[in-house]
Parts: sequence; C-alpha cells; structure tokens
Amino acid sequence: MRAATIRDGEVVVADHPDPEPGAGEVLVRVAAAALNGADLLQRKGRYPAPPGSPADIPGLELAGTVAATGPGATRFAEGDRVMGIVGGGGQGELAVVHERQLMPVPGGLELVEAGGLPEVFTTAHDAIFSQAGLRPGERLLVHGAAGGVGTAAIQLARRAGATVTATVRNPDLRDAVGALGATEVLEPEGFEAHGPFDVILELVGAPNLGANVKALNTGGRIAVIGVGAGAKGELNLVALMGKRGAIMGSTLRARPLEEKALTARRMETEVLPGFADGSLRVPVAAAFGLDEVAAAYERFAAGGKLGKIILTM
Amino acid sequence: MRAATIRDGEVVVADHPDPEPGAGEVLVRVAAAALNGADLLQRKGRYPAPPGSPADIPGLELAGTVAATGPGATRFAEGDRVMGIVGGGGQGELAVVHERQLMPVPGGLELVEAGGLPEVFTTAHDAIFSQAGLRPGERLLVHGAAGGVGTAAIQLARRAGATVTATVRNPDLRDAVGALGATEVLEPEGFEAHGPFDVILELVGAPNLGANVKALNTGGRIAVIGVGAGAKGELNLVALMGKRGAIMGSTLRARPLEEKALTARRMETEVLPGFADGSLRVPVAAAFGLDEVAAAYERFAAGGKLGKIILTM
Repeated sequence: MRAATIRDGEVVVADHPDPEPGAGEVLVRVAAAALNGADLLQRKGRYPAPPGSPADIPGLELAGTVAATGPGATRFAEGDRVMGIVGGGGQGELAVVHERQLMPVPGGLELVEAGGLPEVFTTAHDAIFSQAGLRPGERLLVHGAAGGVGTAAIQLARRAGATVTATVRNPDLRDAVGALGATEVLEPEGFEAHGPFDVILELVGAPNLGANVKALNTGGRIAVIGVGAGAKGELNLVALMGKRGAIMGSTLRARPLEEKALTARRMETEVLPGFADGSLRVPVAAAFGLDEVAAAYERFAAGGKLGKIILTM
Repeated sequence: MRAATIRDGEVVVADHPDPEPGAGEVLVRVAAAALNGADLLQRKGRYPAPPGSPADIPGLELAGTVAATGPGATRFAEGDRVMGIVGGGGQGELAVVHERQLMPVPGGLELVEAGGLPEVFTTAHDAIFSQAGLRPGERLLVHGAAGGVGTAAIQLARRAGATVTATVRNPDLRDAVGALGATEVLEPEGFEAHGPFDVILELVGAPNLGANVKALNTGGRIAVIGVGAGAKGELNLVALMGKRGAIMGSTLRARPLEEKALTARRMETEVLPGFADGSLRVPVAAAFGLDEVAAAYERFAAGGKLGKIILTM
C-alpha cells in the first residue's frame, strides 16, 4: 500500500507492506484522514508514535470502509463505513485499528468529512464534558476557537444548552466562529472582563493562565489541552482557592486502549446523533489527494484557516 | 453571655447579649471550641467574618449541648450533644447554628475532643474524597501533615484503604505523624523521589507546586487548601497535561449553607462512625479555659505542636 511517510523531516508518499488485522482488529480501507498539529511535531521528530503504531506514517484519525476483520472482531462487517482515532498511521491507503476504537460513520456524512471528525470532536467532548463537566445553562469560554478542537467545542457546548464565548486571534475568522454558535467572539486581550465563566477550554497556552483564573466563576473548571503559545505560567493558588476552581490538563494520545475505547462509546451515544440530525458539522477548509501530501502539510502549517485539512486516498 | 472577643488586635473575654435562635436554628451551650488558623488572621483584621456571623467573636467550630431550638428546627432536642462548623462566633458560651450545619457527637467522644473535630475532619474529608476522589489502594501524599487537617487526612485516608506518605518540617513531630497511620514520614526536601502519588493534599503552599506535578501519577489530583508558605508559583501546563492531572483549590468558609450542610451529611455517613468504633481520634495538644483565652492564642500561634488547641467554656 501507499502512505504518507516521514523521511528526513519531510512528508512524502512511499510504499509499505499491507498491514494485517490481528485479534479484535479491523483492516480499514482509508478514504480520508485529516491532518493534526501532532503530525507536524512528528514530522520534526518531536512526537514519536506510541508503541504499536507505524513509526513513519503520520495520521491520528481516519475514515473509510472495512476491508477485512481479524479473529474475534465482530462489531463491524466488510463494507461498513467506519471512523476513529488511531495512535498513528492514519494517512495510508490501509490501516489496522482495534474494533473498540472505531465508530460507525453517521448516515448522511461524507467520508471526507468523517476523516476530520474523530480527533477534534472526541478531544473537545472529552475535555468540556468528561473532564470539566460542562452543564446546561453554564457559560463556556473557548480560547483559540478557530482551530479544529475549538470549532467542535463551540458546536457541542451550544447543542448541550451552554452559552459560548470564543476568543480568536485572527479577525478574518471571527464571523465564521460566530456562525458556529458562539454568542460572543472576542479578541484575546481583555477577555476576562466578559466573565465569569463556568468552564474555560484552553487551546492557546500559559499566557492566559492568570486571567483565566480571574475570569472563572465559583466552582469553575479550566481544561488545558493546547499550549502552543507557551507552557509555563504563574499560578496564584489563593485566587484558585477563592474561586474553588480546578485546572486540569489532558491528552488523548497517551491513553490506554480501554480509555480511548470509552471515549468512542461516549461519542456514539452523545455526539454522533448530532451529525445525523444536522445540528453538528465538520468544517472542512480543503481536501488534498495523497499525491499532494506535501502541499497539504504546507497548507496546514500556514494556518489562518477555519476547518480541517483532509487527505483523501 | 461571655465570649472570646477581638479588641484592637487582641483576644479578650467580654460580655455579649445572649443570641436567640431563629427559624431552623439551634441555640448551643458551647462546651468546647478549637482554635484555627483563620482565627489568627481574623485577630489581625485580615479575615472578616462572613455576613450573619458575629463580627468580633472568633471560632469556626464548636461542640456543646442544645439549649433551645428555634421555630421549625426538628433535628435535635434540648440536651442533645452536637457539634459543627460555624462562620464565626464559636468561642462564646452560647452560639446559634442552623440545624443543617450541626452533627451529633458520636458516643464515647468527649465534648472537649468534639470541639476540635468538625473543621479539620470536614476540611480533610471534603478535599481528599469529595474534591480529589481518593480511592482504596491509591497513594496519598500530605504536605504539612503535622497540622490539624493533615493529621485528620492521614487517619481518613488510611481508614479508606489508601496508603499515606507525609511530609513534616519539624523532625520532633515525625514519629507522632507516623503513629497516626502514615507509612512514610519525610522531610519536605526531595519528596518527589517517593512518588508517584494519586492524590496530593497541599497544606503548605506554592513552593511545592512544580515538584508536586512531577510527583503525580497519571490521572493524579492535587488538592490545595493551605498556602501559608506562599501563594504564587510556576505551573508547567505541558507537565500537567502529560500526567493528565488536575489542580483544585478549595475553601470551606465561603460556601453557601446548602453546600456546608451537604459536607455535614457526608461526615455523618462516612466519618463519624470511625469515632464511635475507635478507628479515628482527635489529637488534642492542650485545652484552656475561657479566661485563659490569651494564653490559648499564644500557644496556638507558637506552633510546634501536634493536635488541636481547645478553648473550654
């Protein structure tokens, strides 16, 4: 099979042996696989794939059809449309995934969109609901809201009856973020005057830390899942105590199979019906064929977009 | 009635009008009331009593007998032994407390001990179980373990099937802390080599923040409820994300009645049986009569003790 492949800091197309599904695994004929920030880190050699994932094929999510099933894999049959998060290796023509990590693609959703769904919607759902416990009627603040996880979080929170405020650095993207369901779309500077917020989803980093605590409502929760603008900041513990607040950090990639599978089951119950009924959508900025993989990575790295960059096989 | 009274930064004994119980309230004839750190802050004018509490009578907890009940108060009858946390005013001969904030004194427990029970055991139980979710088999680290909350946390965690490591600055107190149930009693420097810990109870402050995150187990929780050694420290969000960890700040005093009452119900269910069966105890360092209140405060402020300083009426 052919796959996007990391060679000396570049992403090229190369041939690889076809993978074979083991016990409980599914062989997926990949139709689409989105790019994510971790792919760029992996390209630079700074985010090695976890054990069990191909070392040199990037791609943290995929959508496609079931080509074959391994011994004991019973959740899906050949031809079923599936999608899911993988530890790596999503950006190839074939990929092997444990059946407990896969989800069915909702009816009406194109595979090219489904290829950009699992990572950002699972990450956003896990952070704002499973970690931070967002409740109907609460106020959510999303920092870095124009990114993939941000656009997913806005839609999920609004659908759950919360009110969303978003900060977006690039003024050209603010209208589009508002159209996804954010009631207020702000520049990052001075956001704390718009609080208090019950949950803050931090996709930017430590520079917001002090103001986040100030902007927190009593009992508020800050979920940190992105730190591109900086990892270290000063925390005032007395201020955090005064708010009876919590700061929680999280990543999906490092979790064991059973925890990843649990997030997939929650997605099936709580999120996927929203794609079937049209209340949720995957914003797609652009799609590139596998042979255009270098251009896809350049487009992704350039930023300034709203929506996913998708690689189609 | 006579009560400990703050006058120009000193604590003296003064006469006050007898308080009268309103709807749902209980008039308690106080037998014992412990001193707490907040009393020292209040003496200096730095921790004003919340609305509804006497402005100049310190005391955040008390034990005694029911002297009278207000309209609609049905949980206790005259003569019942009761104890509880109050917003202030505990250190007088009489105090009015809402019946939902009071707990029965377990059989076999002397009122002088009961006067030092509510604040530290409720604080410790709320922090390590209700906030940080400590589970059987997990490892708890308690910083500042020789203090009142620390000694309560050690006993509660051990009784719940967790393993406890304690840090204690004063070497003279380490044996006594070990006798309460801590498996390891360490000096504060270098504690992170003894991790990983599932829950860390922070009673000292920000100087431990960085090492706490390093010492955290995957999915670990840091509950911050004391910051005497400093409030501000540097937090590395990437390290917190890598641990999938959480830092939570909390205080009891600022909570509304319904939340305080809920902590009292949890105490009745989960903690008080341990005093009845002898598996928990209130370490008492010294008891002073009301007329010795100045000496009691001096003894408390001097530190270096293990156990509560109790004022008896």
